[in-house]
Amino acid sequence: MIKVSVLYPNGEGKTFDMDYYCNTHVPMVAGLLGDSVKGATVENGLGGGEPDSPAPFAAMGNLYFDSVEAFENSFGPNTEQIMADLPNFTNIEPTIQVSEVMI
Amino acid sequence: MIKVSVLYPNGEGKTFDMDYYCNTHVPMVAGLLGDSVKGATVENGLGGGEPDSPAPFAAMGNLYFDSVEAFENSFGPNTEQIMADLPNFTNIEPTIQVSEVMI
Repeated sequence: MIKVSVLYPNGEGKTFDMDYYCNTHVPMVAGLLGDSVKGATVENGLGGGEPDSPAPFAAMGNLYFDSVEAFENSFGPNTEQIMADLPNFTNIEPTIQVSEVMI
Repeated sequence: MIKVSVLYPNGEGKTFDMDYYCNTHVPMVAGLLGDSVKGATVENGLGGGEPDSPAPFAAMGNLYFDSVEAFENSFGPNTEQIMADLPNFTNIEPTIQVSEVMI
């Protein structure tokens, strides 16, 4: 199983509309990618490792696929449309990580 | 539900022993924290968002708890022992994120 993580680094002046992300963006992406998506999770940053420290990431979104090929084949043709929606909920340039699920 | 993510940033000269992490470190942490841990996942970094780009993170480990208090109360007394195991599998200083699970 492959996990594609979209991490939104926190910082001064950074904004993130979690309501739009959960209710509009993620459903739109799931609809575009269709059956190749095996699962989706979303997390809202609360803090860092030390008490009262800021969260390194404002938000994290994760999509699961059967393989890297399944991700690339479904995401590739929709990249432009997906990226064009980002300004509707954030001014953060996300960090993207493709991982193999071990546990 | 609370997700505590331990992210190991990639970089030149950085090492990470995934076998030790999955088979020794994560079970040790789960044993120390006991019933407060509601789930654990581990991911191995494969790449970034662009084809053939390096993974931003060598590895990511995630623990799930019912609340921030449940995390702090179980992790706090074991922090020293857990951190002392890090040099056994990596030379990376991890980034820790505490998040609220939205989806």
